[in-house]
Amino acid sequence: MSAALERLVVVGGDAAGMSAASQARRLKSPEELEIVAFERGHFSSFSACGIPYWVGGDVPERDQLIARTPEEHRARAIDLRMRTEVVELDPAGRRVRSRDLETGAEEWTAYDKLVIATGARPVRPQLPGIDAPGVHGVQTLDDGQALLDTLSRTTGRRAVVVGAGYIGVEMAEALVSRGYEVTVVNRGAQPMSTLDPDMGRLVHEAMSGMGIAMVNDAEVTKILTGEDGRVRAVATEDAEYPADVVVLGIGVRPETSLARAASLPLGEHGGLLTDLAMRVRGYDDIWAGGDCVEVLDLVSGRERHIALGTHANKHGQIIGANVGGDYGTFPGVVGTAVSKVCSLEIARTGLREKDAHAAGLRFEKVTIESTSRAGYYPGAALMTVKMLAERRTGRLLGVQIVGREGAAKRVDIAAVALTARMTVEQMTALDLGYAPPFSPVWDPVLVAARKAVSAVRAAGS
Amino acid sequence: MSAALERLVVVGGDAAGMSAASQARRLKSPEELEIVAFERGHFSSFSACGIPYWVGGDVPERDQLIARTPEEHRARAIDLRMRTEVVELDPAGRRVRSRDLETGAEEWTAYDKLVIATGARPVRPQLPGIDAPGVHGVQTLDDGQALLDTLSRTTGRRAVVVGAGYIGVEMAEALVSRGYEVTVVNRGAQPMSTLDPDMGRLVHEAMSGMGIAMVNDAEVTKILTGEDGRVRAVATEDAEYPADVVVLGIGVRPETSLARAASLPLGEHGGLLTDLAMRVRGYDDIWAGGDCVEVLDLVSGRERHIALGTHANKHGQIIGANVGGDYGTFPGVVGTAVSKVCSLEIARTGLREKDAHAAGLRFEKVTIESTSRAGYYPGAALMTVKMLAERRTGRLLGVQIVGREGAAKRVDIAAVALTARMTVEQMTALDLGYAPPFSPVWDPVLVAARKAVSAVRAAGS
Repeated sequence: MSAALERLVVVGGDAAGMSAASQARRLKSPEELEIVAFERGHFSSFSACGIPYWVGGDVPERDQLIARTPEEHRARAIDLRMRTEVVELDPAGRRVRSRDLETGAEEWTAYDKLVIATGARPVRPQLPGIDAPGVHGVQTLDDGQALLDTLSRTTGRRAVVVGAGYIGVEMAEALVSRGYEVTVVNRGAQPMSTLDPDMGRLVHEAMSGMGIAMVNDAEVTKILTGEDGRVRAVATEDAEYPADVVVLGIGVRPETSLARAASLPLGEHGGLLTDLAMRVRGYDDIWAGGDCVEVLDLVSGRERHIALGTHANKHGQIIGANVGGDYGTFPGVVGTAVSKVCSLEIARTGLREKDAHAAGLRFEKVTIESTSRAGYYPGAALMTVKMLAERRTGRLLGVQIVGREGAAKRVDIAAVALTARMTVEQMTALDLGYAPPFSPVWDPVLVAARKAVSAVRAAGS
Repeated sequence: MSAALERLVVVGGDAAGMSAASQARRLKSPEELEIVAFERGHFSSFSACGIPYWVGGDVPERDQLIARTPEEHRARAIDLRMRTEVVELDPAGRRVRSRDLETGAEEWTAYDKLVIATGARPVRPQLPGIDAPGVHGVQTLDDGQALLDTLSRTTGRRAVVVGAGYIGVEMAEALVSRGYEVTVVNRGAQPMSTLDPDMGRLVHEAMSGMGIAMVNDAEVTKILTGEDGRVRAVATEDAEYPADVVVLGIGVRPETSLARAASLPLGEHGGLLTDLAMRVRGYDDIWAGGDCVEVLDLVSGRERHIALGTHANKHGQIIGANVGGDYGTFPGVVGTAVSKVCSLEIARTGLREKDAHAAGLRFEKVTIESTSRAGYYPGAALMTVKMLAERRTGRLLGVQIVGREGAAKRVDIAAVALTARMTVEQMTALDLGYAPPFSPVWDPVLVAARKAVSAVRAAGS
């Protein structure tokens, strides 16, 4: 008895969509499941997170960022249609309308199962001059190539980065690597608004120390252009920053215009809402994952939007398993993120102070300084660890780390502890790897946990 | 009302003993608690783990390994008596007998509370020639100085290290750093018997690749000496290995001869047995910690002996809290250890295959290769991760990692997961730090967890 042929349609050919397609293909043969995937861009399955390192020159070739080409997907019996944009979802009719971006031709494709993986779109404020030559986003490989083309043609060496989140600070590093004088113009009081301001201040100081001009509390009002029409400066209320090239790194929003038009459920951050199996809530035959969905924050119990390749890959894996007749769930996130600016490492997981306040949690906070290795071991580098613990219960709520080598991935200790809902007291007994080249005898995370225990006790008495 | 003056006696002036004394002093003033500590050696509170790096030259000065000098302890009202050996414990009489090693004078000191922190002693087989000049242990700072003196006087460049555990491989690195031709003579089938043999094999291959001569399955039968009485070779049943210097790194045993003579409870590994508050079982006024005790392995549920500074410091902290009228417990360990040989990083936590067998656990095992960073990011280095998961339940049982930069401390992820008794399926959803300079989009530990999930499911069907 052969199973009836079903059709899976995937909207979006990047991490979440193609992971789902690939996993479904592993579980179901082409005789059981036809898979059609639509991608409006020129590339499939690429690492957007790698673009800053390609622009900076650490990754020499664009194609190194492509995990799997369209041809490789097609060789595995996935009908991936490039440069073809889905322009309408019709859940009632179980079909999608697509447009060939080369010819303009449109057609309807019926589905039995649908995966929405439309990703995120960069925030691009409608400012005068924003579309001038020399102003670049860095969302796609095409964006990256356009920026590299500009850099190769530009003789001036002044770059302005708008935004000081992950993309902004990574692009600042990239442009420093390319020999530019870099100014970062940042709306917030400190860079890295994913950290508390006191930790963001450490990032500010370190980046200033690297010769990057850091401008905080500055809203860009317009992009000024020269007589040739190219960008010449970035203007805020108070000042102008001369620029031969401008990079926008302001963040992203879920790309859910199709989902919204089809009345699919969206959350307060504009992302699709799913159940634990990554099915769109209320729909048995539609799944969604990656940068277009909201995810449950296991610490606060609230939905968040986090655009990160590692989540997108997990979502795709789970969607593919469920679509393919297997079983998997995505329980949620704890909000871990790591980044670096040159030698500075930045990491966070769990809640910031303002997240904890917003979630109705009372907490104690501690900050400690320690070193990445035994103090006497060569290369021991300072790191600052901030830890939040719930009042009374002592449950770990969040950790932020700013330091040098060995700082970023230490946050994984806290990420696992958050997932396990450990208290800071339980954490003080953690059996972490110790040897002089790798850690002081008390790992910095344990030093912070010990201080947090004292703070919780002091507040409780 | 002033509290009655009590006396705390501490036997052993290193990590566990002096941490206990210091923590007790923080909690109790000299008017409440007198603290007397006995140390038979020349140094207090030093980092034995740092000796290989001092010998190797990474740490230039011996005194960098001393966390706190006797004078510093005394300045905090701890009566630390150096070069004074406790030679008898009298629990019934609540007193200890000590001997001044300079004068030979003996005296009894009464205690209200006693801390036993006598540490471990290196295994030193009674072989012909073992005491010849040029044969060195590396347990104490005196040992390290003696070895350095030998190295500075020796013109030959051939070194033999006996033993291929942590001390052995770290001393091999140290001697390579000093420009020696190093041979490691190892009784086991592979180096690093704290790993499974398949993972030990990777260490063998890497060390061989560094130019270290690795001899496995070789029992040393004697140390051969020249006409000058100095060591000239190490002999096994089958061969002789010329040596200008020999370093013994065979491991350690709990130093519990005093405890044994006083009929205190010892476990199957010869270490003192304590309760969760680190009190010696059956004794309300005696605590013990550090290298002289056995600890509960939270994964197997059995007692183990693990000589490691990080545990000793935790024990001391907890003993000091309890002695000082506060409260703390040491729940146990999961068996985490990290080390390195030149650029090779080695890590383990939880159970090896033979530990799991011995504990009555059935398990599945998987091994994967991945990279420390995104594959396209410069410096991405291969690492091998082995994972054991319990059959049926899928509970994580152990992880071993061998690789280059970024391999060792990744084991902390598994250490926390073991503590939280996570299943490998739960681990696949862990929200670990991801950015191209720090991890592939699937962290190597997650890749191993995914494969372990498949193995558990395949075995269950």
